Parts: sequence; structure tokens; C-alpha cells
Amino acid sequence: MNRKAVSLLSGGLDSTTVLYYAIDQGYDITAFTFDYGQRHSREIEASKLIAKKAAVTQKIFKIDLRQIGGSALTSNIEVPDHSDDGTIPVTYVPGRNIIFLSIAASFAETIGSNSLFIGANAIDYSGYPDCRPEFYSSMIRSLSSGTKIGIEKGFDIKVPLQNMSKPEIVRLAVNLQVPIELTTSCYRGGKKACGKCDSCHIRLRGFVEAGIPDRIEYEYYPDFYKKFMEK
Amino acid sequence: MNRKAVSLLSGGLDSTTVLYYAIDQGYDITAFTFDYGQRHSREIEASKLIAKKAAVTQKIFKIDLRQIGGSALTSNIEVPDHSDDGTIPVTYVPGRNIIFLSIAASFAETIGSNSLFIGANAIDYSGYPDCRPEFYSSMIRSLSSGTKIGIEKGFDIKVPLQNMSKPEIVRLAVNLQVPIELTTSCYRGGKKACGKCDSCHIRLRGFVEAGIPDRIEYEYYPDFYKKFMEK
Repeated sequence: MNRKAVSLLSGGLDSTTVLYYAIDQGYDITAFTFDYGQRHSREIEASKLIAKKAAVTQKIFKIDLRQIGGSALTSNIEVPDHSDDGTIPVTYVPGRNIIFLSIAASFAETIGSNSLFIGANAIDYSGYPDCRPEFYSSMIRSLSSGTKIGIEKGFDIKVPLQNMSKPEIVRLAVNLQVPIELTTSCYRGGKKACGKCDSCHIRLRGFVEAGIPDRIEYEYYPDFYKKFMEK
Repeated sequence: MNRKAVSLLSGGLDSTTVLYYAIDQGYDITAFTFDYGQRHSREIEASKLIAKKAAVTQKIFKIDLRQIGGSALTSNIEVPDHSDDGTIPVTYVPGRNIIFLSIAASFAETIGSNSLFIGANAIDYSGYPDCRPEFYSSMIRSLSSGTKIGIEKGFDIKVPLQNMSKPEIVRLAVNLQVPIELTTSCYRGGKKACGKCDSCHIRLRGFVEAGIPDRIEYEYYPDFYKKFMEK
């Protein structure tokens, strides 16, 4: 019997690539998706199509993080266009990955699993504190000491994209035959991706650097992408 | 200006004592209560009365942990009577304190606070993994590395009852003028405390050992309590 693991699936490119990676590694996967009141709830619809395509069980957990607020992703603060100023952006949901990992770990325990997969990435990311490696090594210890299954068998969080650049992730996605056309990454959550927010910007930059055209549609294409497609 | 902190308030004796302790220490406290689909939802009503009595702001966060299940406190599994067999009981909600601390930390960050108070106790507790000291030291590191405010200023979880016995907690509650009569600890959540579950048993034992009568009403009084009251 394959080892059970829970893979956090947002419907974005990174988490979908991690799902396909985990399946490829021979794990018996349950995809775990949060319906957290996000502005980009189109993600949830995307995640359902992806889980179906990947033929894995999916658990959708509802938690209304708008009760906390403090982020452009869950409150009325406007999602800004991409910027390179190096600060933590307003799309940061305070401690979101900590909350998500805690809940997914709790669920994993109920199905007898002590492994989580998450698509966090320390390189081409938006500068969120809970995407950094130091955080994951510490969170592994917290789950290993704070859950019943963790005390018995240890608890592991696998972050396979941690040290990969965005173009490397794009290439991995292509190699694993990830249904890239089903993924959605835009923070604004319109019918087409906006092409202007942080997340769209990072995604398009990754495709260009990998030398591969993206397969989803955008409302707007930044100049660097237009130049790439003209070649 | 007093330092802001968030104190987890369930409405039980321990968390209420911690709330009064934190106020006594001069913190500007927001009480944080979870409405998590618990069988003992009477706790939430108790917590409201306590927050009002203590004159602190209260934030109630709704999260339906019945979506996860796996515990007698949130599912249809029956709450058992107290037992001394040393195993982790079915009232254990997998990783509950990890989830609660993560969410409370996220909220704390939005109000500019990097301190949490929690009434966990490593001695007279029900044997839950997420009440142990190893877990807290690790969770402090996770919150310090995984939140924006944690990176900037560090993040602290204060567990003042950690090394106190239940009779010590009862005496502290009396000294701090905690409204013991408003607290509720019973897992079964009836109008009166059952007097038979783990939580009632530990509470009554604590009052007897402190030489102080409890101020709440019970459906049933164990022999050791009856003997104590006859003296």
C-alpha cells in the first residue's frame, strides 16, 4: 500500500505541480483545498478540476479568514500591481501558511497520515515570511511534538519547490504533464488572469525564462511577455 | 501604553485564570474565543460573560472543526467518563491547540501584537500532545519565523500555568479574584457540569486538593468530592 500524504492544493501552478510531483513519487494523495474567503475564489473551482484530472480525493475545508482581515486577498484593501520594492506586500495574509499547515496536519492525522506536501517556494515568491525554509524546519518540529501521530511517528512537511526558481518549476510542470491550462494564479480572480498583479507577473516571468508559452489567458500581457511571444 | 496581547479564552477555569493573570501583569488584552463546533458550546456563552466581567475586548472566531472530526468533542463519538489508563483520550481534537495558536497569532499580528497567552498545562491535563512544553518552545519558533511581526520583533507564547498543578491553579484563581462561578469546564456541555467526564474529574480533584469548594453546580458529585464537602 502506498504511503498516505496530504497535498495542499490552491489551484495555482505551484501547488498543482507539487500534487503531480507527490503522485509521481508514489504517494496515496488527498488534495486539501481551503475555501478561506479569498478574493480569487476561482482558485477553488480550478482546484476541483485539477483534483478530478489527477484522480485524487479532494477535501475542501471552509475557514473564513475575512474574520481576521489584514490582507488584500481577504479584505477590501485593493490588490496592487507588481512592484520590486522588496517589502512584504499587502496581499500577505498574516500567518496563512501556518494556519493552513495546522489544519491540514489535523486532517492528515484523522486519515492516519503524517506527511504534508506544500508548494511553497523560497526564491521566486512574493516575500511572505511563511514561505521561508527556517519556518518549515520549525513547523516540522511543532507538528512532530504537538500531534499524536507526530509523537508516534514524526511528522514531515515536504516542500519540493523550496529551492527551485520559477522557470525550473515551469519545466518540472511540463515534465510531469501538469494540466497547466487548468491552473489559476491571479490574485484578482477575474475570468481571465489580470497580467498585472504580483502573482501574474511572477508566473509570466517564469514561463518566459523557461522558454515556454503559458497556456492560460490574460487580460493584459506585460511587454516582456509580448517580446518573448514575438520571437 | 500597555503592551498588547491576545489571550485564548475558552470559558474554562484555566483559560479564565490566565486571562486574569495577563490583565494582572499589565497587558492590554484581547480575549480570543473559538466557536469551533464544540459539543460544549456553553463554553462560548460563559466566555462572553467572563470577558464582560473582566472588561476586555473579545474576538470570537468561527471555525467548524467538525469538518475534520476525529474527536468526541466535535463528532458523534460519545464523551467517555474519566479514566486513568494513561492513553490519549477520544476527546483529543487532533492538533487543536496548533490550529488555535496559528489563528490567534494571525489575528494578533493584525492588531500589532506579538504575544499570546494560553491556559495549557502540562501536569493535570488530559494527556493531549499539544499541551506539552516541547510543543510550545517549538511553536514559538514557528511563529517567530513565519509571521511578519515575528520576524521583526519575535513572537512569544506565554503559558503561565504550564508547570502548575490543578490545586495551584485553583489557588491562583482565588487570589486573582477570577469569577470561578462563571467558568465551565465540562466536556458534555449540559446545563450543569456532569461531574463524570475527564474535565470535571480533574477540576473537582483540583478544588479538593486546594481545600476550596467549587462554585459551579454539578449533576453528579464523585465520592471524593462528597467526602471533602462533608468535612
